[in-house]
Amino acid sequence: MTAKSQTLVFKNRPRIIAGMSVVGDKEGEGPLGKYFDTIEPDPKMGKSSFEKGETAMFSKAIEGAAAKAGMQIFDIGALFAGDLLNQLVSSSYAARDLPVSYFGLYSACSTMTEALSLGAAMINAGYFKTAACATGSHFATAERQYRFPLEYGCQRPPYAQWTATAAGCSILADSGNGPAITHATIGRVVDYGITDANNMGAAMAPAAFDTVLAVLEDTEMKIEDFDGIFTGDLGRLGGEILRDLCRERGIELGQRYSDCGEMIFSSEQECYSGGSGAGCSACVLNSFILDKMKKHEYNRVLLMATGALMSPTTSFQGESIPAICHAVIMENDL
Amino acid sequence: MTAKSQTLVFKNRPRIIAGMSVVGDKEGEGPLGKYFDTIEPDPKMGKSSFEKGETAMFSKAIEGAAAKAGMQIFDIGALFAGDLLNQLVSSSYAARDLPVSYFGLYSACSTMTEALSLGAAMINAGYFKTAACATGSHFATAERQYRFPLEYGCQRPPYAQWTATAAGCSILADSGNGPAITHATIGRVVDYGITDANNMGAAMAPAAFDTVLAVLEDTEMKIEDFDGIFTGDLGRLGGEILRDLCRERGIELGQRYSDCGEMIFSSEQECYSGGSGAGCSACVLNSFILDKMKKHEYNRVLLMATGALMSPTTSFQGESIPAICHAVIMENDL
Repeated sequence: MTAKSQTLVFKNRPRIIAGMSVVGDKEGEGPLGKYFDTIEPDPKMGKSSFEKGETAMFSKAIEGAAAKAGMQIFDIGALFAGDLLNQLVSSSYAARDLPVSYFGLYSACSTMTEALSLGAAMINAGYFKTAACATGSHFATAERQYRFPLEYGCQRPPYAQWTATAAGCSILADSGNGPAITHATIGRVVDYGITDANNMGAAMAPAAFDTVLAVLEDTEMKIEDFDGIFTGDLGRLGGEILRDLCRERGIELGQRYSDCGEMIFSSEQECYSGGSGAGCSACVLNSFILDKMKKHEYNRVLLMATGALMSPTTSFQGESIPAICHAVIMENDL
Repeated sequence: MTAKSQTLVFKNRPRIIAGMSVVGDKEGEGPLGKYFDTIEPDPKMGKSSFEKGETAMFSKAIEGAAAKAGMQIFDIGALFAGDLLNQLVSSSYAARDLPVSYFGLYSACSTMTEALSLGAAMINAGYFKTAACATGSHFATAERQYRFPLEYGCQRPPYAQWTATAAGCSILADSGNGPAITHATIGRVVDYGITDANNMGAAMAPAAFDTVLAVLEDTEMKIEDFDGIFTGDLGRLGGEILRDLCRERGIELGQRYSDCGEMIFSSEQECYSGGSGAGCSACVLNSFILDKMKKHEYNRVLLMATGALMSPTTSFQGESIPAICHAVIMENDL
């Protein structure tokens, strides 16, 4: 049985020509605050519910990214999007206002890299000239759906993560300026038997580890070949587990590795193990990471978003938490 | 503003080399009973919950399709799959047992054609040699999640549809025997303002209409060029609305048009407007339609699965129902 490549190679170098990040005020007060395009003080965005506010943030990210790319919404070839709400309603209601072909995607908090992988693959193959890849999440809607409504005031364990209120959108194109997506490594589902739905970092770290090994084997690159390696969102605990799993195989992630969930909140913000949510890696990519690539502080970046694929129903039924990690490699033209 | 093509063209003719359908006993007793591969008398498949039963059906469809294609599970290039349960847990828990790259997809009951579109696109472009495209649904889990648990014994209006307990999987490959997927038309989100979550056919018919127009315009084919045209799942009422919308534009769908939801149950089975659920079009494709194509009774088929993209939360919040329809064209080699 020979090993099978999980990695797609994009010779035509589809690229990220624009990115837009929209975040809530807590995220705006965090260490990355100055990098975000807009910080929204109202978590409902002037709408009547948190869910409608989440959709409004989603729309703002897509429209803002298109505007930064100098495009009309109508010019977008296709939308690749998903979110954490049941039936992906943030994405679908945002897509309702866009006259473009829409691919609904779900891989929990790894949806951003699933969208970038498919968007880049479809542009590289010539099916579309441009694509919008978007995802988002919202603290209030995620707490209500996955745990308890905020009004209950439930306590959280110290290893819990805090769902980021954030949306991000990248515009991909077959030409133009911006970092190219050169590879995408499509994850497999990995389950090490974790059953505590508060301990998502521990559930997802093995999936990130599985994908790190696939990236290194398929591309024959080394850890040292990347200026930055980012997971999203293992949090502090999950990030440490990933470092340990890698170390056991002789792979030292070192200083170049950070986790988007760890980066987005400072320890004073009482977000425990750090941020999470599909919007977390989406907003960090479309602000901090693209900014550093634009300035050539990073020239090759590995972004590995991780997702926990359980539902409240499966947790109630005693199931363990399967996880997945999709990775993309982004490179500046040199 | 010029019209933009929504249609992908697959010159390398990726093909469906095998299909597997797994259904519940009610579906087995319906008009298409003799076409299904397996009819399961136990809706829990011997597991402790309906949800676990749904996952088991899903796994059986994938494993069965791979076996019919003469493949080991490990040989599948990638899995493109989704379902109706929150967080796509049927797909993800089925994918947990498969050592393959997994793309989680959601477009409600149009997930089968979203999966076929992406699977065929990725094979046509040379990224994978084979792919499994799968989806499913379950009456008991859908009622509990979207409406009320079965034990409540709620009444249903006469235009309601009945979620099919079914899973279907198609194996796509870059070579081999079976109908080629020559085109995929990727839908846009369409919302005509329907707010009655029991009246999904009316909500989805405009999306099907939008995609019919895109197919005819993009491919320059005519209705008469198809031996069979299938929507899934508008039901009786939605199918009539689609016929009317087309007729107003001078397009007569005629006898060659049927709806998978209308086909799967007979009127004596008291399923009101007909079947629905992501598994409905998946099991009709992977039984009846592939059988008729194999016998050359159909040589060119247009399959247009339709999805309603709302959630219970958006319905409670008074939102209307956005819908989408993705279409694929399948052709025999002649």
